[in-house]
Amino acid sequence: MQLTQCVHRAVRQTPDLPATIFGDRVRTWAESADRVARLAAALRDLGVGQDDRVGLLALNSDIYHEFLLAVPWADAVVTPVNTRWTPSEIAFSLQDSGTSVLYVDETFAPMVPQLRELAPCLTTIIGGAAVVDYLVDTHEPMPDSRRGGNSMAGIFYTGGTTGHSKGVMLSHDNMIVSALGSCAAGTYVQPGGRYLHAAPMFHLADCSAWTARNLIGGTHVMVPSFTPQGVAEAIERHRVTDVLLVPTMIQLLVDSPEAAEHDLSSLRHLVYGASPISEAVLDRAAKRLPGTEFTQAYGMTELAPVATLLGPEAHHDASLRRSAGRAAPHVEVMVVDDQDREVPRGAVGEIVVRGDNVMLGYWNQPEETKKALRGGWMHTGDGGYMDDDGYVHIVDRLKDMIVSGGENVYSAEVENALAKHPAVAACAVIGVPDEQWGERVHAVVVLADGHEPADDELREHCKRHIAGYKAPRSVEFVEELPVSGAGKILKRVLRSRHWGSSRDR
Amino acid sequence: MQLTQCVHRAVRQTPDLPATIFGDRVRTWAESADRVARLAAALRDLGVGQDDRVGLLALNSDIYHEFLLAVPWADAVVTPVNTRWTPSEIAFSLQDSGTSVLYVDETFAPMVPQLRELAPCLTTIIGGAAVVDYLVDTHEPMPDSRRGGNSMAGIFYTGGTTGHSKGVMLSHDNMIVSALGSCAAGTYVQPGGRYLHAAPMFHLADCSAWTARNLIGGTHVMVPSFTPQGVAEAIERHRVTDVLLVPTMIQLLVDSPEAAEHDLSSLRHLVYGASPISEAVLDRAAKRLPGTEFTQAYGMTELAPVATLLGPEAHHDASLRRSAGRAAPHVEVMVVDDQDREVPRGAVGEIVVRGDNVMLGYWNQPEETKKALRGGWMHTGDGGYMDDDGYVHIVDRLKDMIVSGGENVYSAEVENALAKHPAVAACAVIGVPDEQWGERVHAVVVLADGHEPADDELREHCKRHIAGYKAPRSVEFVEELPVSGAGKILKRVLRSRHWGSSRDR
Repeated sequence: MQLTQCVHRAVRQTPDLPATIFGDRVRTWAESADRVARLAAALRDLGVGQDDRVGLLALNSDIYHEFLLAVPWADAVVTPVNTRWTPSEIAFSLQDSGTSVLYVDETFAPMVPQLRELAPCLTTIIGGAAVVDYLVDTHEPMPDSRRGGNSMAGIFYTGGTTGHSKGVMLSHDNMIVSALGSCAAGTYVQPGGRYLHAAPMFHLADCSAWTARNLIGGTHVMVPSFTPQGVAEAIERHRVTDVLLVPTMIQLLVDSPEAAEHDLSSLRHLVYGASPISEAVLDRAAKRLPGTEFTQAYGMTELAPVATLLGPEAHHDASLRRSAGRAAPHVEVMVVDDQDREVPRGAVGEIVVRGDNVMLGYWNQPEETKKALRGGWMHTGDGGYMDDDGYVHIVDRLKDMIVSGGENVYSAEVENALAKHPAVAACAVIGVPDEQWGERVHAVVVLADGHEPADDELREHCKRHIAGYKAPRSVEFVEELPVSGAGKILKRVLRSRHWGSSRDR
Repeated sequence: MQLTQCVHRAVRQTPDLPATIFGDRVRTWAESADRVARLAAALRDLGVGQDDRVGLLALNSDIYHEFLLAVPWADAVVTPVNTRWTPSEIAFSLQDSGTSVLYVDETFAPMVPQLRELAPCLTTIIGGAAVVDYLVDTHEPMPDSRRGGNSMAGIFYTGGTTGHSKGVMLSHDNMIVSALGSCAAGTYVQPGGRYLHAAPMFHLADCSAWTARNLIGGTHVMVPSFTPQGVAEAIERHRVTDVLLVPTMIQLLVDSPEAAEHDLSSLRHLVYGASPISEAVLDRAAKRLPGTEFTQAYGMTELAPVATLLGPEAHHDASLRRSAGRAAPHVEVMVVDDQDREVPRGAVGEIVVRGDNVMLGYWNQPEETKKALRGGWMHTGDGGYMDDDGYVHIVDRLKDMIVSGGENVYSAEVENALAKHPAVAACAVIGVPDEQWGERVHAVVVLADGHEPADDELREHCKRHIAGYKAPRSVEFVEELPVSGAGKILKRVLRSRHWGSSRDR
């Protein structure tokens, strides 16, 4: 299967239907396909060859859609960049993946000189929409390379427990199997209609919905990035039918006074991921969006990304609503002990997943790959249990990761940054409950002798080393950290102060 | 992907849900899975090794379901037998595929001595349900071989233009991609509910719905074979939600006085294939089944099988209703000339299809395979055109094939049989419109000197050589056949007398 197949089908079936709507700019499938084929030719002309990596550092737009198709059309591999990372984090991912050509939109243009310095692999920067238009205008359409199957479609960087991000290699089949399987369940992106890219397109959660919308046809609507008002306006203006949001975005959308004026009645289906939704937010969302069905998708980049789905009916059941749903049609899900043996129902273990959506591996990390995929199952690092009906309940992240506003933050990364500050003697970073962010990055710090508590200073320090969203939003100073007999910091003890004993995530 | 994956998922999610309902016999997914794993062990014990072919000659039942899963579980290949064929046709397919182990149910037991004689490849006959139960009871469950991906799942025999049937090799991925893609379109087998196997399970149309139901979960209900009353009873008694039928069956169901007493209101979705439905039958069906949505699927065994789908909305449009729908999410469809160049919209050419559902090839027929798959596209042999919205309209079968009651009949086979009769000087076999069968096998015969018209005698003669459903249902005697300058019989001229000029199929 090929990510570009949808283009050929759409041109035959719906040439005059809008493929993309971005602000006032509407491009039909026929126009979009033509631009893709010309942009692919331009990439070739810029020296992009088979399997070369083409990076995208940009907010959401119709041009993002065109690059996501033009890169495989030219037989190359896409590396979407996390726009929230610092220049050094971005440079690491570009350098690690050996990305030579990078599209940078107007928003990120100021970062280019620093990226050029930090990532010497970069040979060509395509700077802004006008340059893309110029490339499109000056090249003839090339035939589709028909790249697909087990060939790499993209390298998607995710945070890592070791403090360095890892490149997840996903094939065309990986991404298409996840999208087809999720659609087949009947509770993902719905046939027909208009999907709104409100979540960042560089993130596989949104990228997967993009793949699904392409497969079953319809229209993409993009807003550059999430704002409650911008999303509400786009839904009303373009009669958007489905959208994927993280719970934080849902909360902002339904609570926003600016969004309140807009008519959201066209929205029939909302998929949310990354973390369960709080009862309070779900209730408010159901009131604000009475005609909208909710589906939760649980997964990870390594799973391209969907593992389980919790459909609209299950949302009517208060206990199921706190689960992550059941294995989607394309996967098997199992909970195992540390010897990879399936544990009894109800017992907590690691969630492992098997299916054709499981990544090819980590880029240039054969050992990490082997470890993650041992026995043919993707080891998610998430702790959880399965009930008697196969519903998966996530209780802990074995990988020590925080999901804040839909972004994964690995504690180790934040702890590494904190530890560089002279005032920090010891620290532990955990996720604590937060009405707005789902989880909030929270640091527990033991001060070095002679230093005074200064949480602002520590936050600023972190932001110089890691992305702003990873920096602790709250800091707590303590005399000492709870440790086990072996000297390991007992994060469970720290977390229990915030989550209480009833915490099931 | 693996056909058996569904078993592992269903056992985790719905162990107590009925997997199969056959008459009064209900087996849960846990029970069914256990029987599958034991039956697989028994097959191994009977000498079935990796890649060996296991045949199924049986009416629909829960045991058919168990074999369809046990054979890949044991790492083998299934060869479902067309139950309507004559012993010599069946023997040809068994011998050609080298099938060593054959399950034969009670209905076909009388055929065994003849099959043993005609197909010496057969080493083991598993005769009847009681023997299957014995095998299940006397073997321990074996672990799933996890056969899947591009490995062969089955060899499915179809009629051939040359007069001999060909074995279509389908992989696990072929079958699963077709089922996932069709489900993703939202107009195939629906999530949840109960699917009724009323069409023969040996046929890929039903087998594909079986795959889909397994993927998205739910229950299989089987009747041994189609009868209007049996189907109506099963729908009422088991609250069946979806079914696949050929138009002939729909007509019989909605017109049957016996079926009229039964409550069919549980039926939410009906897929029909093989041929378009006549307006008259569709209107009567819509009246009898007011809560049922209709979808047409067009495809062929070589496409595992779905190429295009015509969803419920399109059925409200009189002109679309006569089309075969549009390319499903997993395929591309194109209409080409004899040089394989795409023709303009509206122009008639051959329908070709591309996608991961396209067969591995014809068993032991590399030349036929190369011809059918040239340029990476499956050449369907069906003539048709595509309208501006991508709807495919079938106008003729380049392969000279008749679809009667959902079965493919190749004219060449019937003509070969007819020609063996001393009274037949020349003949041509065509499909003519028939209210009950969609198309009826019709023979146009020029008698040899001194012979009298005797259509009954000719029909009986044919039935001795080919399956009963292939024998002409009507015979017309003429002085001469219309021929072209090159001496080729002009079937178009013969057909026009029956179909009129407005015929679009």
